Amino acid sequence: MSELRGPVRIVGTGLIGTSIGLALARLGVVVELVDGNADNALMAERIGAGSRSVELEPQLVVVAVPPDHVGAVIARQLEQTAGSGAIVTDAASVKSKPLADARRLTGDLSRYVGSHPMAGSERNGPLAGRADLFDGATWAITPHETSDPEAVDLVRRLAEAAGARTVEMSVEDHDLGVARVSHLPHLMSALAAGTLTDAPSSHLQLSGQGVRDVTRIAAGDPKLWTQIVSANSTALTGLLEQIRGELDRLLVALGKEEAADELTAILGQGASGAVRVPGKHGTPHIELVTVLVTIPDRPGQLARLFADAAESGANVEDLRIDHSPGRPAGEVELAVKPASVDQLVTVLTDRGWTVHR
Amino acid sequence: MSELRGPVRIVGTGLIGTSIGLALARLGVVVELVDGNADNALMAERIGAGSRSVELEPQLVVVAVPPDHVGAVIARQLEQTAGSGAIVTDAASVKSKPLADARRLTGDLSRYVGSHPMAGSERNGPLAGRADLFDGATWAITPHETSDPEAVDLVRRLAEAAGARTVEMSVEDHDLGVARVSHLPHLMSALAAGTLTDAPSSHLQLSGQGVRDVTRIAAGDPKLWTQIVSANSTALTGLLEQIRGELDRLLVALGKEEAADELTAILGQGASGAVRVPGKHGTPHIELVTVLVTIPDRPGQLARLFADAAESGANVEDLRIDHSPGRPAGEVELAVKPASVDQLVTVLTDRGWTVHR
Repeated sequence: MSELRGPVRIVGTGLIGTSIGLALARLGVVVELVDGNADNALMAERIGAGSRSVELEPQLVVVAVPPDHVGAVIARQLEQTAGSGAIVTDAASVKSKPLADARRLTGDLSRYVGSHPMAGSERNGPLAGRADLFDGATWAITPHETSDPEAVDLVRRLAEAAGARTVEMSVEDHDLGVARVSHLPHLMSALAAGTLTDAPSSHLQLSGQGVRDVTRIAAGDPKLWTQIVSANSTALTGLLEQIRGELDRLLVALGKEEAADELTAILGQGASGAVRVPGKHGTPHIELVTVLVTIPDRPGQLARLFADAAESGANVEDLRIDHSPGRPAGEVELAVKPASVDQLVTVLTDRGWTVHR
Repeated sequence: MSELRGPVRIVGTGLIGTSIGLALARLGVVVELVDGNADNALMAERIGAGSRSVELEPQLVVVAVPPDHVGAVIARQLEQTAGSGAIVTDAASVKSKPLADARRLTGDLSRYVGSHPMAGSERNGPLAGRADLFDGATWAITPHETSDPEAVDLVRRLAEAAGARTVEMSVEDHDLGVARVSHLPHLMSALAAGTLTDAPSSHLQLSGQGVRDVTRIAAGDPKLWTQIVSANSTALTGLLEQIRGELDRLLVALGKEEAADELTAILGQGASGAVRVPGKHGTPHIELVTVLVTIPDRPGQLARLFADAAESGANVEDLRIDHSPGRPAGEVELAVKPASVDQLVTVLTDRGWTVHR
């Protein structure tokens, strides 16, 4: 087993690169920070993610640059470290394209193995970096045919050092997976949200929680998402064609009384898919019971509610605040394990809360 | 101005009908409950939503039956109340089809005006009914060309009595509005979720908060949603055709380097649409600042957090728990007004919380 001793060179000091640096620095690993943007590297250094000048040759290089440049930087780093034999990985959210790009640009890829730390934020840049960004997150490792097993091993050590849970899968499987659970949902959200740009405000007045949930991720940076979805265009094209087929089925069935079963089948498929999305802690959808509580919209009410909930012994597994426009009072939905619900309702009701199951 | 004196006859004692009954009963208005399903009417009566037998003729009839039957029941109620001249309204989520159906089945529609109380729940049936379901909710009232102004007035009184905020708009405008902000998002969510039904579980392992948000509403009852979207097929067909056009643009642009600007334009339109969705209290998207706090996953931690937040004087306007699979600690995102954020961060940090802005 290869040990992660360092130094680790991080190329690209955005959110991901800086957070990896901070996580390693907290373990005492020497981190070298490299960024074409000198300001970013300086900021990352100032917040303790590593140093801009390190004498020793790196044991491991982590490429954390924007998606479009990953392959070229991997190739360049492999060449620069040909003498020392350093392992090279990257942190891009798509794995086939960087591999293909690197393969086109350099010879031997045995010292390279791709990886994808699955954590992020709507924030960007080194100042958004956090040592605990990857705590408990999933970190996919995607060996290719010529990856050296030692390289795979060292990248696993990196992920574990950052606090993540590793999952190993092929490059192709990874890209299909993220196409399904990340890139396609983003595009569908963007298409749905796109129809609102020219909507009269009287229509938007009718908005509820559903449209807020569906369109939330569409607010992400269009330029960054252009790079992400472009890099995964093969997997996404297949899925989008499948969506187009279903959309055509929908358009044919809609409004024809004799095609109601067809509509129900399409909606039923959606319902089956929705319940497959894992909930908290990566379990395959924990059974939870929800309880609705009405709360006055002023400071301190949530505190009072959660203090009362805690005294009932229930652990709140999930919660949501309902924002129906115009409500003077809020409504909080608490999700708890079935075994806790009776006691929770009793305690909250005793303390004067309006509770609905 | 017509006063709401009652009796009010409620036809259909599901969630909406029962909740209207409970809201009126709390004001002392006499409510008559009618349902083809005798068990439902009995349950609604037992929880205090009204009475199954009322001697007096109704002043107002509220039709709250499933979408497919609304028009026929409106027509029948208009005929039954021809002698007393009662006003008739309905609570369906689509307004053109019930109006057209009723017009085909009966003569004079002046005593009818449509309405749409915009509140609901993932729960169904009389036992889910609540007197405060409409408190502060939006209740659309949709007069048609021949609606008697007194009918419009009385329905407004009904909505206000139930605690709702009324919005008056044309039948056509209402249906276009809900197509955009409710029915289309539902279909997009169902299409996205539908691609997950046959996904290998290794793919689902890569799920994050985005796919959970986008697919959540797809879990709604496929039969009920078939009726809802079928009733609004005209407005929806136009929007779905627009989506198909954008999907085709996406498919052409995806993966072509020279079409990156086209992709960015599509994603940018989504981003512009997403920020138009109103936030809390029906305001056109309040500017809020979010703060991330790491919390151990055990009872009482949320209580402690909200107590500390309340002491800082900040009102938490929105919150979200991040459920990255496998995280031993949770992460709570608190949204507060910009003026409160500094004090909030100071107080939380002082009390030992790990806080990120």
